[in-house]
Amino acid sequence: MKLCRFGQKNSEKPGVIDAQGRLRDLSSVIPDLNADQVRLSKLNSLHDVDISSLPIVEGEQRFGVPVAGIGKIIAVGLNYADHAAESNLPVPSEPIFFTKAITSLNGANDAVMKPRDATKMDWEVELGIIIGKTCRYVDEANALSHIAGYTLVNDISERGFQKERGTQWVKGKGCDTFCPVGPYLVTPDEVGDVQALDMFLNVNGQRMQTGNTKTMIFNVAQCISYISRFITLQPGDLVITGTPPGVGEGKKPEAIYLNVGDEIHLGVTKLGEQRQTVVAFSLANQEIIE
Amino acid sequence: MKLCRFGQKNSEKPGVIDAQGRLRDLSSVIPDLNADQVRLSKLNSLHDVDISSLPIVEGEQRFGVPVAGIGKIIAVGLNYADHAAESNLPVPSEPIFFTKAITSLNGANDAVMKPRDATKMDWEVELGIIIGKTCRYVDEANALSHIAGYTLVNDISERGFQKERGTQWVKGKGCDTFCPVGPYLVTPDEVGDVQALDMFLNVNGQRMQTGNTKTMIFNVAQCISYISRFITLQPGDLVITGTPPGVGEGKKPEAIYLNVGDEIHLGVTKLGEQRQTVVAFSLANQEIIE
Repeated sequence: MKLCRFGQKNSEKPGVIDAQGRLRDLSSVIPDLNADQVRLSKLNSLHDVDISSLPIVEGEQRFGVPVAGIGKIIAVGLNYADHAAESNLPVPSEPIFFTKAITSLNGANDAVMKPRDATKMDWEVELGIIIGKTCRYVDEANALSHIAGYTLVNDISERGFQKERGTQWVKGKGCDTFCPVGPYLVTPDEVGDVQALDMFLNVNGQRMQTGNTKTMIFNVAQCISYISRFITLQPGDLVITGTPPGVGEGKKPEAIYLNVGDEIHLGVTKLGEQRQTVVAFSLANQEIIE
Repeated sequence: MKLCRFGQKNSEKPGVIDAQGRLRDLSSVIPDLNADQVRLSKLNSLHDVDISSLPIVEGEQRFGVPVAGIGKIIAVGLNYADHAAESNLPVPSEPIFFTKAITSLNGANDAVMKPRDATKMDWEVELGIIIGKTCRYVDEANALSHIAGYTLVNDISERGFQKERGTQWVKGKGCDTFCPVGPYLVTPDEVGDVQALDMFLNVNGQRMQTGNTKTMIFNVAQCISYISRFITLQPGDLVITGTPPGVGEGKKPEAIYLNVGDEIHLGVTKLGEQRQTVVAFSLANQEIIE
């Protein structure tokens, strides 16, 4: 299943994409696609719904974050072998992870804001995991059975905030709009082999990142198992799994950073695509920041 | 006002402490003390309630986390001048902050669990702030007017997870039960000068930490203002502000860490006290971990 939340910000309705790629309104079946509804015990019952009987939603739609009420965002860093090589960084012996603030969540194609004082705003296409069952000391062999589905994420980062303002990365990871998610939550049965998905990211039409989930250092099962030894993951939590080569700070001969007006376009096979425009931060941007 | 949530885990009721120190049941006035109810616009209306008319709650009560639905926990590190001196660390030029997972939240006197593989479990008495109004680029002069109240927090940490498993501290900060909060949410009018509060922490009756919020490097207003330039704070968010001297890892001639059976007792003037017993982690401890 390819699930989503569509409509105006803060009043999204749940939807599902049918076999012909049309958006159908799922609100007669569930009130919203939220952290409770993605519990596997509830989510799996959606497989019994006759999608072809649901109303087709016509016209262009905005996509919200595909799961409402995400409780926390855990991000694995430096998790692609080819990215580590490009950065001349050693391959980590165990996963590195950090967090993104839930206030950074953003619809897949909503504008992203350049914070005040930002000079090194960067992109990171990533595979996202939505948890469907509580994970606490889950072993690798059982980890995949705790996943509700996968989603596309742009782990937007401000490198100056992240790396030049102390040792803790969260300063550059949790700004408002820095976590576009979606458009879809795609259930594992529809994704197939999650370690064989192509990834790309363009800025202003120029290819910046090209990768595949097969070059992950720690695969999805290992990431979930590892995190669950430190932090309990709950249904609706989002885990993002690192980015392949091609981030702006690593560009030669010099780094390339995002500026107001830039257009970002990214995608992961089977998970859909995102397009974002970078806008200046303004407290007047209430439609963006609230 | 001194507000709280009392009763069994996951079915707490809102309460208020009256002028004689007795617990009164506030559930006829508000359904719960949650992130929505601590918005200043709502919280301030509680000042009009005739507390003496509310039912007295008799007998010993458990105290839950004083605000339900805390959205995020931001923690300022190395924020006491005397603690920095004790640790031979330079005073930071700007606040360092990190996050604790919301799954680490724990009632003030509930048992705390030693995670599997933990060997360096430590304590940190801290002043906690509950946000009452959205903070986004708030200047220092206005920061205090965004605060719903203050609370006592033990920022429990596993130093091995925090410092020996990569650079990002969250691994050692977000384990289940690592964030006891409360027993009370105390409104600013009742706290008075928040930069003049004594703090203490004992383990097994032995004094480990002694401090006062006057030695903070960055005061409460500066912390809130600074964080809000990176991460938006929302009503119900918890900000913790660093710990005074005396953590276990700094003890001479050698570090002292927490073990199963240890009793922790801590307090901050006007905010009340906490007592926790350290227990072994067990998946069978459903009453603790769920």
